Amino acid sequence: MTTQQRDTVDQILRSVPFDMGGEVDDQRPLFADLISAVPLPDDVHTEHAVLGEVPVVTITLDRVTPTGTILYFHGGGYAFGSAALSAGLASELARRAGARAVSVDYALAPERPYPAAVQDAVAAYKALLDDGVAADDIVFAGESSGGGLALAAILEILSTGLPRPAAAYVASPWVDLTTTGESMTTKADDDPSLTAHGLRRRARDYGTDHDLVDGRISPVFADLVDFPALLIQVGGNEILLDDATRLATRAASAGVPVTLEVTPDVPHVFVGFAGMLDEADEALNAAGRFLRANLARTPG
Amino acid sequence: MTTQQRDTVDQILRSVPFDMGGEVDDQRPLFADLISAVPLPDDVHTEHAVLGEVPVVTITLDRVTPTGTILYFHGGGYAFGSAALSAGLASELARRAGARAVSVDYALAPERPYPAAVQDAVAAYKALLDDGVAADDIVFAGESSGGGLALAAILEILSTGLPRPAAAYVASPWVDLTTTGESMTTKADDDPSLTAHGLRRRARDYGTDHDLVDGRISPVFADLVDFPALLIQVGGNEILLDDATRLATRAASAGVPVTLEVTPDVPHVFVGFAGMLDEADEALNAAGRFLRANLARTPG
Repeated sequence: MTTQQRDTVDQILRSVPFDMGGEVDDQRPLFADLISAVPLPDDVHTEHAVLGEVPVVTITLDRVTPTGTILYFHGGGYAFGSAALSAGLASELARRAGARAVSVDYALAPERPYPAAVQDAVAAYKALLDDGVAADDIVFAGESSGGGLALAAILEILSTGLPRPAAAYVASPWVDLTTTGESMTTKADDDPSLTAHGLRRRARDYGTDHDLVDGRISPVFADLVDFPALLIQVGGNEILLDDATRLATRAASAGVPVTLEVTPDVPHVFVGFAGMLDEADEALNAAGRFLRANLARTPG
Repeated sequence: MTTQQRDTVDQILRSVPFDMGGEVDDQRPLFADLISAVPLPDDVHTEHAVLGEVPVVTITLDRVTPTGTILYFHGGGYAFGSAALSAGLASELARRAGARAVSVDYALAPERPYPAAVQDAVAAYKALLDDGVAADDIVFAGESSGGGLALAAILEILSTGLPRPAAAYVASPWVDLTTTGESMTTKADDDPSLTAHGLRRRARDYGTDHDLVDGRISPVFADLVDFPALLIQVGGNEILLDDATRLATRAASAGVPVTLEVTPDVPHVFVGFAGMLDEADEALNAAGRFLRANLARTPG
């Protein structure tokens, strides 16, 4: 049964017209079509707001009394997507974590390249703190480039002396914009949605003339000391598989409490297929437990 | 509080006279003293038996009706320890997994070097199958060298066409007998119990004139394709940290469902300190959930 589910998802991804490496004007509506194919469940409510001059979408659920806030960063290669488009995945996390989600409309390249997105992420977080939300009641989460951005923002937070969030959850994170992982080639045929060529175009647009090995652009090269608890989930059919394994290794060597979960035979951001793919629901359940446990943990 | 627990465990380990790299005749009683310092709980029962001509200890608990069998491999650098000595840790796993444990008294070096231990492990497994226990109702588990042995045995099982066990759980596994992980040096000062020098002596005794990069001696170099679900837990204060991270990476690239959990600031086989160290209980709870879930899973 689950083999059939996986084949269906793979075929969908191989057939969609969206191209990560294409022209942004052409591709943005195609990316929106891909992400918004599944409507939001009826019990999910979204509200546009502004946090620290950054547009956000606040996501709440019927019958969930939030015990904390998930600051959520959507994916899309730093060029595509929006806070509202990722409300579905953010709401699935919020549901399982017993939290509300605040999805951030951070700056997109090529119009507003690095460091604008990191500045927006930190500004939204700082505004939450200024509103009286405790850092221990905030967890960061993100998918793909949004996972990388969540980590880059935490680096900036640590360097500026702000209190750190309670934890970070990243799904299929893009954390090496130099695209040097072995899986860029070894998993190229297995990956139904991403190509190294496409990622390199997005990396150039985002990084402009900055060195892409900078830890705030490619957190896999950063010193992750003092990072909060980190959960990394990744699919086995991803050219970004080694971004995840190297991030886990880097975090482990820096003394970070880190968990890496690799689910074979599923694609990039497979957690976006909740309800269609058993593996997505299982992984989201684990992510929800992780976020819930870290929101409940008293500072040590 | 937990900082105090960690300091206490660290001091205990730094003060014990056992030396992993010492003479086996001198060190075996010291290792036994270290491991057996905590008595078995009253609700744990052990029984000596023989499986496939290999001595084992069967471990059951009051009020636990086993839903499966944990085939357990103790640690001790392939030279120290015994099935009975590791009954405490095996019973903590069995309690949380809702299973019985069968702890294997495999051959020890230098008297009986590789491949005797692997042969014993496979013989015990085969005898369980011959007794009518289904492979899906068996999980492998092991600590330190016992973790490496569990994986080496699964390699042999796969190569001989026997049905594979349902899952494997390895705590602080020693899977690179060439001792080439970066953490051999980067974590040397943090590790209160192991040294690269000590491990190299044990590797020579076990491997004799075999090439230590052989995957059945050092599973981190093996092709792990077709491996069952794998949970790896490791402490941050271990020279074996990179054995765990590299094993996870290797398993991920081979399409294995793998979870890596790194707990910072705790030593080699920290899960052995249940009841003394909160991190040990948390990790054992996660291991129990993993084993329970995989014992309950119907074959896909």
